Amino acid sequence: MSRSPDIRIVVDAMGGDKAPEHIVEGAVDAFRESSGRFTLVLVGQEERVRAVMNKLAVPSGERWAEGFLVVDAPEVIEMDEPPNTALKAKRKSSIAVGLTLQKEGKADAFLSAGNTGAVLSASTLILGRLKGVARPTIGALFPTAGSPCFVTDAGANVDCKPRHLYEFGVMGSLYVSSLVGKKNPSIGLLSVGEEATKGNEVTLAAGELFRRSSLNFVGNVEGRDILSGRIDVVVCDGFVGNILLKFGESVPGFLKSRLKQYAESGFLKKIRLGMAQGGLRQVMRNLDYQEHGGVPLLGVNGVSIIGHGGSTPKAIKNMIYRAEEMVRWKLNLKIEEAMGEAV
Amino acid sequence: MSRSPDIRIVVDAMGGDKAPEHIVEGAVDAFRESSGRFTLVLVGQEERVRAVMNKLAVPSGERWAEGFLVVDAPEVIEMDEPPNTALKAKRKSSIAVGLTLQKEGKADAFLSAGNTGAVLSASTLILGRLKGVARPTIGALFPTAGSPCFVTDAGANVDCKPRHLYEFGVMGSLYVSSLVGKKNPSIGLLSVGEEATKGNEVTLAAGELFRRSSLNFVGNVEGRDILSGRIDVVVCDGFVGNILLKFGESVPGFLKSRLKQYAESGFLKKIRLGMAQGGLRQVMRNLDYQEHGGVPLLGVNGVSIIGHGGSTPKAIKNMIYRAEEMVRWKLNLKIEEAMGEAV
Repeated sequence: MSRSPDIRIVVDAMGGDKAPEHIVEGAVDAFRESSGRFTLVLVGQEERVRAVMNKLAVPSGERWAEGFLVVDAPEVIEMDEPPNTALKAKRKSSIAVGLTLQKEGKADAFLSAGNTGAVLSASTLILGRLKGVARPTIGALFPTAGSPCFVTDAGANVDCKPRHLYEFGVMGSLYVSSLVGKKNPSIGLLSVGEEATKGNEVTLAAGELFRRSSLNFVGNVEGRDILSGRIDVVVCDGFVGNILLKFGESVPGFLKSRLKQYAESGFLKKIRLGMAQGGLRQVMRNLDYQEHGGVPLLGVNGVSIIGHGGSTPKAIKNMIYRAEEMVRWKLNLKIEEAMGEAV
Repeated sequence: MSRSPDIRIVVDAMGGDKAPEHIVEGAVDAFRESSGRFTLVLVGQEERVRAVMNKLAVPSGERWAEGFLVVDAPEVIEMDEPPNTALKAKRKSSIAVGLTLQKEGKADAFLSAGNTGAVLSASTLILGRLKGVARPTIGALFPTAGSPCFVTDAGANVDCKPRHLYEFGVMGSLYVSSLVGKKNPSIGLLSVGEEATKGNEVTLAAGELFRRSSLNFVGNVEGRDILSGRIDVVVCDGFVGNILLKFGESVPGFLKSRLKQYAESGFLKKIRLGMAQGGLRQVMRNLDYQEHGGVPLLGVNGVSIIGHGGSTPKAIKNMIYRAEEMVRWKLNLKIEEAMGEAV
């Protein structure tokens, strides 16, 4: 693919448990692999970012000088700072500076593995919301035996009204449609039983909205349906979604510790398990959400991708590719169109 | 242990996907093993129940004739019937007849693997609530590397007020205290972050109640803490709890299907995984909630144990032992006392 200097991706170099090291490394890898499909703009404390670049021996040729940029942002929002206080106090944080570049038309996408709450708030505040969207949402991709299941909202909105859940379904459907190339992905409303009469006050009313819509709504789904591969998009509030996501993330560690206990109960058991290690590792990796490389905040007037604080350089690289896709898909135009039709 | 004819446990012979066969079989096994520690009363369509007993060659001696009874209940509430309609229409269902025996003082405990909603409603309606309890709750035991984590509510109450969550914590704490013999079990409030400021409207207010109490409240916990073994009791509303429980139950099946896909990708892989099968099976079994043999409905004026519809005879047997324990613990006295002190 030839150079498209029109795609400019801002990377929050200071966001993440191992920032700026892992972030810069992932960005360098992505830029190296991508043969000039996009420009990367690393935003953060310039000296520290350049120090990592030097350590990684970033070339000084024209391609890198023009396509791999650094913009200084002297302030850093730490992972555990209260988002809103931090955003007010640190106007020159990498998050604020990075998103402002996009707001001003100087970039097309922003990504961060930093303070999730701060990225969410700043994205909505600085980029604004798309027409017809009351609540931007982040989702999470859960593995299945088939294509992944997109659970939305995954933590951006803990208290939701029925209309918000409906919006999540519309946006999630369009996202998954682009992601896996599927027309009319199936949408399920996460509840405590399949019957339309089962649910809490909010989901019962949201179910009505979905049934009135032209979406491919399959009705209520249950916790067990997420990993089944039967449903493309599962809608819930961010309280439920966040708890599920974190529970799911903890399963591989739990299984590993149980397998270890088992292996330690006998030498032969240890040998037998050792033989299967490759397979186990591969299957566990399916549950490793980091591999997916971040999730987009859907519904903001721009592209903002949020990654796990513990993102590895590989995860950062995947986030950059995800950001590139999001820009190419022009998903926001489709979301505004769908919201115009919304019930 | 000698015969205590004072413990009489009612078994819903018609509840469960494989009722009455699996239920009667489990009851026969429990009675055989228990050397007369309790009397079992099987409630259901007498002819069908006796037919299964004949097939299982139940002895006709004095011990069985006096300790293994059948009470006729001509009507059956099916697994998928709307609970409240079914309870109104079928006054002579095994659920209604069985619970009424307890209400009338003719039995000490009831257990069913039948229609969960119907058992919940009927238990509260027929047995009544304990003093100070607004919402009886069912919990679920999640496996951990250490002792299990009791998540309550697991589906009985989908819309909750802060006070209800607080009650779940009080009752769950007393239950776990008896179950694993631990004083002051740790209680966590399930939320989207550990900070006291994180949560939805209901959990934020519930956190205040817990902090004011004398319970061993550790604050907010996240989805990842459930399997960690750090927390004894995790409190949430029944919407979240039910979704988590069903998600957790689906994990072994998901992993099995992924391991199968992996094994099919090469002969050597298949051999290697085959070697480890015993260990895998044992670890997966930890995630098999059925093994635990049902969960009690806490807060009703009596003992009511609810099991999975797919309960095997072994699960039914475990439910009977659990019912026996519940009667011996006199948990309800402790709950009423704690509620008297409650904030």
